[in-house]
Amino acid sequence: MSDLPGRPVADLVELLRAGSLGAAELTVACLDAIEAEETTLRAWAHLDGDLALKRARELDALPAGERGPLHGIPVAVKDIIDTADQPTEYGSPIYAGYRPADDAEVVARLRAAGAVVIGKTVTTEFALFQAGPTTNPHDPSRTPGGSSSGSAAAVAAGTIPLALGTQTAGSIVRPASFCGVFGVKPTFAAVPTRGVKACAPSLDTVGVFARDVAGAEHALRVMADDAQPDVSEPPQRIRVGFARTHEWGLIPAESRSRIEQAVKRVATELDVVDVELPAPFAGLSEAQTHLMLVDVSRVFGYERARYADQLSLRLREVFAAGDRSTWAYEAARAHVRHCRELLDDVFTPVDVLLAPSVLGEAPLREQGTGDPLLCRAWTALGTPAVSVPGLAGPAGLPLGVQVLAPLGKDGVALTAARRIGALLARHA
Amino acid sequence: MSDLPGRPVADLVELLRAGSLGAAELTVACLDAIEAEETTLRAWAHLDGDLALKRARELDALPAGERGPLHGIPVAVKDIIDTADQPTEYGSPIYAGYRPADDAEVVARLRAAGAVVIGKTVTTEFALFQAGPTTNPHDPSRTPGGSSSGSAAAVAAGTIPLALGTQTAGSIVRPASFCGVFGVKPTFAAVPTRGVKACAPSLDTVGVFARDVAGAEHALRVMADDAQPDVSEPPQRIRVGFARTHEWGLIPAESRSRIEQAVKRVATELDVVDVELPAPFAGLSEAQTHLMLVDVSRVFGYERARYADQLSLRLREVFAAGDRSTWAYEAARAHVRHCRELLDDVFTPVDVLLAPSVLGEAPLREQGTGDPLLCRAWTALGTPAVSVPGLAGPAGLPLGVQVLAPLGKDGVALTAARRIGALLARHA
Repeated sequence: MSDLPGRPVADLVELLRAGSLGAAELTVACLDAIEAEETTLRAWAHLDGDLALKRARELDALPAGERGPLHGIPVAVKDIIDTADQPTEYGSPIYAGYRPADDAEVVARLRAAGAVVIGKTVTTEFALFQAGPTTNPHDPSRTPGGSSSGSAAAVAAGTIPLALGTQTAGSIVRPASFCGVFGVKPTFAAVPTRGVKACAPSLDTVGVFARDVAGAEHALRVMADDAQPDVSEPPQRIRVGFARTHEWGLIPAESRSRIEQAVKRVATELDVVDVELPAPFAGLSEAQTHLMLVDVSRVFGYERARYADQLSLRLREVFAAGDRSTWAYEAARAHVRHCRELLDDVFTPVDVLLAPSVLGEAPLREQGTGDPLLCRAWTALGTPAVSVPGLAGPAGLPLGVQVLAPLGKDGVALTAARRIGALLARHA
Repeated sequence: MSDLPGRPVADLVELLRAGSLGAAELTVACLDAIEAEETTLRAWAHLDGDLALKRARELDALPAGERGPLHGIPVAVKDIIDTADQPTEYGSPIYAGYRPADDAEVVARLRAAGAVVIGKTVTTEFALFQAGPTTNPHDPSRTPGGSSSGSAAAVAAGTIPLALGTQTAGSIVRPASFCGVFGVKPTFAAVPTRGVKACAPSLDTVGVFARDVAGAEHALRVMADDAQPDVSEPPQRIRVGFARTHEWGLIPAESRSRIEQAVKRVATELDVVDVELPAPFAGLSEAQTHLMLVDVSRVFGYERARYADQLSLRLREVFAAGDRSTWAYEAARAHVRHCRELLDDVFTPVDVLLAPSVLGEAPLREQGTGDPLLCRAWTALGTPAVSVPGLAGPAGLPLGVQVLAPLGKDGVALTAARRIGALLARHA
């Protein structure tokens, strides 16, 4: 079996550009790898090999001058994102067989840049909490995390180099941490969400999974609006603030000590200082939860009214919780705004923050897709967040950490994540 | 063994007034009953038989003209309420052996009316969630509920006719429901809280447990401020609104059907209509939770600062949750105010509401003291709430329901509770 699908996106971009690799050849390699893994992995909601191969052959036929920056790169699209040529089911039986009229904006941009959409990856129900069938590539009894379950698992399993995800609470950073790949949630609103099924519009963010930061950056340059993300070169010497966060005490001791060890490794080459987050940040997770629940309970008004019997019990409970939280909505928004104003001070002494991203290794599948708790605050603030792999937990499964940067400073976050990732990988 | 301690307070008041029963005789009967039960029940934090007997003999020596309305009635005082002549430990090791300088106002009023304080009953830690040693008199493997654990259990076990409790979320209604006695939480602020350890001052309410409504009413007349509670006669034909509440779906089906059956029994003699509570009421439990957590995390500032190592883990988690909820405080208050304005409309077609009070029978002791969920909304609103016994759950354990009345209409609530209690007892 070819190792091509598990190679870094940046390498593949070079090979394709140099002509030493064809788009069709790479697509076939991905399809073969997917076929080999899918019985256990169950990462795909829809797969159309013929369509992908046809597109790859068209790309191979393009003259060099007409090739885009992602020429021939296979990409998986989370099934919460519309595709005009493939079904888009949002992880819900309500949308079984649904065919959107148009590609989501990010899909259109990726295609225009030469990417080959291989298929649609499993999402939890409407990108919320009801898990799909996907397993963790490191241990099939464990969850890959959610809601971008299939995208994270497919990249981690080495079956595709690049995949799209979305994050409303922790749906990119968490599965990336559980599966051991890079997961990038850009600055809120840096990447267009047109054609992405709305979940909580004030939080929903499209991002990517890859095995290399450079690959994620390639994709984000294509996906983001003109001025975003900021990929300007960060300061030579990156100053890292280690933020244990107000939730530190909720992380099991054995995971905490591994994170502390990882920070020590990072400190061998980068400037690392401890950062205590402002006291009001302690309320951010709770505020994000209220915002999200209320948004969600409103946004799905149509599905609630028309298809209540096709919603999972778990989702109906989420909606009911949103109905109970309406009174807190404006206060939650105000609290997030207040904390956002404090971000400038947080990032004055440091360029990025390094923070825990998950409460531990991936839980067993029957326990759900894991807790997004440690991602909630950052998603509410809208900062770019990059999950960096390289740590392992007590059971030997991946345990990510996340790098946060100021709003709009996605390039700084990515550069720091690349350097931190290299340090963690070297010692792993 | 004498059955006197388990007799209705109203009967005992009559026997004592008529002189056919002496205060000392009744006190001895209580002390004997307590001794017989205490090894299993563990309802008492402190007991002083000699002191009680001395007081009872003094009362027996009083001329008839100087005897108060509760002459000779033994009463148990929840150990969250100050007593000058007995230790008051608030369920916390921080206050081991603490002797307040003065009686709480309610204790002083009860003593002045002739009540005999037998001792102090077990409370959870600071009337919050960490359970004490008390067992449920119907099954020692079960919780009696909390936080007024000892008071409810002691009355239910027939060891004392009257006991004081306090409610901040569901600390009177819940243990009354789990133990199968009447528990009365008066209108907020109708009974003075001076000398009661503050928990969440905007919610804390002192009330009573008894086996008869008339007895509870006797006590409340003594305890309440002049104009409170309103014990004016309610309309001859009480109109009962059955409010399933927005939390109905969270009650197990087998408990729901027993409550429905009970309502049918009530409807054989009283006018019962279904009442749908206003939509904003769905948010009251959540709002109450935020108010309470924030209040609690502030009120215990002294203990948190000075004695952190003597607080239970559970309590420290509650404090941390309060710190995380500060942003929601004003919004929660505003939401409660808004719902309070809707109460007039709720009570226009009915005199009282009949509503579920607990999610089911008493849980096993290792699971805690049960969930106050179904009491939170009413405590936040401040309405009088009376837990009425008479139902049994699927395991044969008591399952209370609660009667709610408009603010200040404690007399209406009590009268309705008496009639409903009689109907449920007759069919039990």
